[in-house]
Amino acid sequence: MTGGYLKGRIRREDIITAAATVYGELGYHGSSLRAIAKRVGISHAGLLYHFPTKEALLAAVLERRDAEDSEREQLTVPPGLDVLRHFVALAGYNVRHPGIVDLYSRLAAEAVAPDHPAHEYFVRHYQAARAGVHESFAALAARGELRAGVEPGMAALTFIALMDGLQVQWLTMPGDVDLVGSLRSYLQNVLTVPF
Amino acid sequence: MTGGYLKGRIRREDIITAAATVYGELGYHGSSLRAIAKRVGISHAGLLYHFPTKEALLAAVLERRDAEDSEREQLTVPPGLDVLRHFVALAGYNVRHPGIVDLYSRLAAEAVAPDHPAHEYFVRHYQAARAGVHESFAALAARGELRAGVEPGMAALTFIALMDGLQVQWLTMPGDVDLVGSLRSYLQNVLTVPF
Repeated sequence: MTGGYLKGRIRREDIITAAATVYGELGYHGSSLRAIAKRVGISHAGLLYHFPTKEALLAAVLERRDAEDSEREQLTVPPGLDVLRHFVALAGYNVRHPGIVDLYSRLAAEAVAPDHPAHEYFVRHYQAARAGVHESFAALAARGELRAGVEPGMAALTFIALMDGLQVQWLTMPGDVDLVGSLRSYLQNVLTVPF
Repeated sequence: MTGGYLKGRIRREDIITAAATVYGELGYHGSSLRAIAKRVGISHAGLLYHFPTKEALLAAVLERRDAEDSEREQLTVPPGLDVLRHFVALAGYNVRHPGIVDLYSRLAAEAVAPDHPAHEYFVRHYQAARAGVHESFAALAARGELRAGVEPGMAALTFIALMDGLQVQWLTMPGDVDLVGSLRSYLQNVLTVPF
């Protein structure tokens, strides 16, 4: 790794950190690349060298969020109850970080269009989350720990969709929605063992 | 009702219809009040008389959508299985009208902020939907038709959040998500009678 390359990577990480902060303060729509460049102490042109569009920077913020989630929650544990517990822990972390949940929800809704810069990110994100939960429900079913009639693939799709839908309702009415409790309740209802 | 008042109401309805069409074609962010005024054949100032902001018009589009949903799906049926069937029928209608689902999802994510013009709309919308489903689950529980351990209020919150979360995933990957089948599957899993 050359010094120049390393310096470029550090600068790139600094920009992503500043972007996440500015998004949290002003929202995605309220922020601009100029404001983010100013925060990180570089020129607008300098920022454009790393991220040519607002959307490219947003995608980078989300990619890093996923990497951090995986690391913190160790989403690479073997399939089973522990994977589900990590998703619930992730929801608990999200409750303490509404800014990033807000950003995620908004972008998910905007990125449904195939030509949106973050579209591929969300396709991969949903597929990876569903696959992980599906595998865990299948492992639980093989041990007789999933209630009869519950299909692992359908339960996985439901669990991820529920997490996303609950987050929007929770952001809208924080006092009215128990995000973590609702997820736990859903899981307990499909399992035959204590969650 | 005076002739002038009636004329104003018709014009207002025409603007809402044109707005829904333009949103479906260009998305909410891609549309402008000028483009909508042009579509309905009135001046920009004429449109501003009825809807002073882009957000006010959007809220009116959503209010009318709710009124139409209630009428078409007769969401005023007595609490019980029929209310749940009407929500599933509504999801079936939504699958044939992705433009309005897209609009709803984007606005729901933007309107989490208390100062957003559509915030109160979404609070009322969630509360009404949850109350209707809660009442139905409670009626089913009283007849022994809800599985033991399923709490009606929690199941209602889950059902509405699931519907919202599934819609975003379905819009992102239409071939990968069975919106109606997933909702039916969730309901069948909490009921003791055939759905």
